Amino acid sequence: TVQISHLSQQHFPLLRLALLNLHLAPLSPAEKGLEFPQYDGKDRVVDINDKNYKKALKKHSMMCLFYHGPIPDSKELQKQHQMTEMVLELAAQVMEEKDIGFGMVDSQKDSKVAKKLGLQEEGSTYVFKEDRVVEFDGLLSANTLVEFLLDLLKEPVEVIGNALELRAFDRMEEDIRLVGYFKNEDSEHYEAFKEAAEQFQPYIKFFATFDKSVAKELTLKLNEVDFYEPFMEEPLTIPGKPHTEEELVEFIMEHRPTLRKLRAEDMFETWEDDIEGIHIVAFAEEEDPDGFEFLEILKQVARDNTQLPELSIIWIDPDDFPLLIPYWEKTFKVDLFRPQIGVVNVTDADSVWLEMDDEEDLPTPQELEDWIEDVLAGKVNTEDDDDEEEDEDEEDEPGNPICCRSL
Amino acid sequence: TVQISHLSQQHFPLLRLALLNLHLAPLSPAEKGLEFPQYDGKDRVVDINDKNYKKALKKHSMMCLFYHGPIPDSKELQKQHQMTEMVLELAAQVMEEKDIGFGMVDSQKDSKVAKKLGLQEEGSTYVFKEDRVVEFDGLLSANTLVEFLLDLLKEPVEVIGNALELRAFDRMEEDIRLVGYFKNEDSEHYEAFKEAAEQFQPYIKFFATFDKSVAKELTLKLNEVDFYEPFMEEPLTIPGKPHTEEELVEFIMEHRPTLRKLRAEDMFETWEDDIEGIHIVAFAEEEDPDGFEFLEILKQVARDNTQLPELSIIWIDPDDFPLLIPYWEKTFKVDLFRPQIGVVNVTDADSVWLEMDDEEDLPTPQELEDWIEDVLAGKVNTEDDDDEEEDEDEEDEPGNPICCRSL
Repeated sequence: TVQISHLSQQHFPLLRLALLNLHLAPLSPAEKGLEFPQYDGKDRVVDINDKNYKKALKKHSMMCLFYHGPIPDSKELQKQHQMTEMVLELAAQVMEEKDIGFGMVDSQKDSKVAKKLGLQEEGSTYVFKEDRVVEFDGLLSANTLVEFLLDLLKEPVEVIGNALELRAFDRMEEDIRLVGYFKNEDSEHYEAFKEAAEQFQPYIKFFATFDKSVAKELTLKLNEVDFYEPFMEEPLTIPGKPHTEEELVEFIMEHRPTLRKLRAEDMFETWEDDIEGIHIVAFAEEEDPDGFEFLEILKQVARDNTQLPELSIIWIDPDDFPLLIPYWEKTFKVDLFRPQIGVVNVTDADSVWLEMDDEEDLPTPQELEDWIEDVLAGKVNTEDDDDEEEDEDEEDEPGNPICCRSL
Repeated sequence: TVQISHLSQQHFPLLRLALLNLHLAPLSPAEKGLEFPQYDGKDRVVDINDKNYKKALKKHSMMCLFYHGPIPDSKELQKQHQMTEMVLELAAQVMEEKDIGFGMVDSQKDSKVAKKLGLQEEGSTYVFKEDRVVEFDGLLSANTLVEFLLDLLKEPVEVIGNALELRAFDRMEEDIRLVGYFKNEDSEHYEAFKEAAEQFQPYIKFFATFDKSVAKELTLKLNEVDFYEPFMEEPLTIPGKPHTEEELVEFIMEHRPTLRKLRAEDMFETWEDDIEGIHIVAFAEEEDPDGFEFLEILKQVARDNTQLPELSIIWIDPDDFPLLIPYWEKTFKVDLFRPQIGVVNVTDADSVWLEMDDEEDLPTPQELEDWIEDVLAGKVNTEDDDDEEEDEDEEDEPGNPICCRSL
């Protein structure tokens, strides 16, 4: 006989009440206060063309344009296009309150508009906010897109006012962050800092303090700005204070992080930013003890080698991308319930992974460093094994290269 | 003139290559290795009925049944039902590799099957795994459902083997956790612990160690089990070691956390677990300095008052539920870019919120404690203001109660 999990039995005092709501929201048998928005069927996403684009851009405080290729002939691809439309419609419905408009631009039918607006990459969404355009090249889900848009509505610079707020800042080791110390909100240098912040919002976080004791904790002098690379212990002080907007922008663009975490909001952009066609990719679940341990080793190696300009590692927490886990496991032939590090060729997704016998067999920092050195020297690469026949454990099918590590 | 954000210009060395992939995956102009799964149009979700349910349950290692009310007549609600089907189809497609089957049970047409299988709550999904049924009463998105199912595939108990892994455990203050020290994997007490873990998987996390020095760090004696309530500094040692499975289950079910974080995977279940029709709800963005500061104050108050059995606070990080933010702001009439705490009546979503002039005006721990005391004593409640006319700032429409704090 079947046994219902104890946790489920525990909390149903209001089951009756919950059922009453069902005709309103069939998916969420919730009480009031947690009614998840569902698409109401109203069309809000505008089909942008030569005639309506100016009006559409003027009408809203922010306008969100999805740039897509011509609608395909195949039924399957049409269905996918419809699903994208649904995602945009749901986002548009939810963001109606915030006065954010949505539109779609066809790269073929509306090529003139696309050119005028500077839309370049099909599949990307471009957000027009005042005199700026911000490209969203992330996961096109309603959740990710809405979170991105809400972030764009926030102040571009967060002010740190006391020691407790400083702790919040200290915890954000995953993000590229800048923090500056300025006299007050009216300072012209703070103004330049804010202008620079707007260029990178919401991808890079900007903080400021006007408080002497907070500045002292951060070892910041007046008008000084520190740049925090993800996972590094010490920040870089941007030379030549006070800075113009352009100087800040230039410094940021010159600094590619040694180790960065893949995020839904710019996952495709990050993936496209490879080094000579490859990525060093580490999979580690931070919530898992082995994953956490591996990540600590990885951070150590990244810190010790941050001076190498050609070293760039992407950390993927599989928990953040559950839908991709089975796909990655199949494509890369790795078990993602365990930590993994490998080299991925972005042209053909061919890959080679560091051998670990089991999850207890994590590399030492020295072993990991040696492996990374071999990768950078080309000694570990995705091509060497493709034609090898001597590895008897592997059953390579011709023309279908299998990486050196199988499940 | 329009200026493309610098970050977007930076990373397009492979734009051409990206475009080549477009006909395959119009939504994700990715290179290889990051192809987000899209529904391929194949029907995998089985319409469960009296004749096929036994076979369906036998066929897969895990079976996932969505229990829904009769298909509605209205076009709009039918569209919503179709979207639910799409979510399940995508999850089924992604989880095909893991041998997880999916089905739908209609509460009216298939009431006999539902009764046999013990399905009770429309809108819930029931996962059949060996001799257990686990109810999923969370957000029905492909992401959340797939993550939940993958968690169910993991070992019910995680083993902590060294000091670094222990640090991972220490960081999980948001979760209800248990940790036990046992002689080895063959210990009968570890076996009982594992059986208990299966009852709560994946909602409550179970850890074990067989390592003397780890146990010492945790101040655990042999066969002892500690229970960690979320956000508390000290664990409770479960009395009467060694424990049977039933003793562990009973102890866990008796301990409702004082402060818990709303999670997508059991959000509706948590919301239904109110105290006399109300919830104390705190909104705070952990990534935001003010939100973090407020949360630290809240944790302090929760720790100081954890002995009060009727005190239960739900912390919601708005970042986790972007789609709900505009809905909550409208329903509760609060600004969620700032921290908020209030009392919500779950029957009508009427609410009353602690006044804070601005985000710098956070309450002290003492002020927050006084307010919570007033809530528990019924002095602060959602009803008092409903008929008040003296507050001139408010424009109450009759029959449409407005809470005491407006935007």
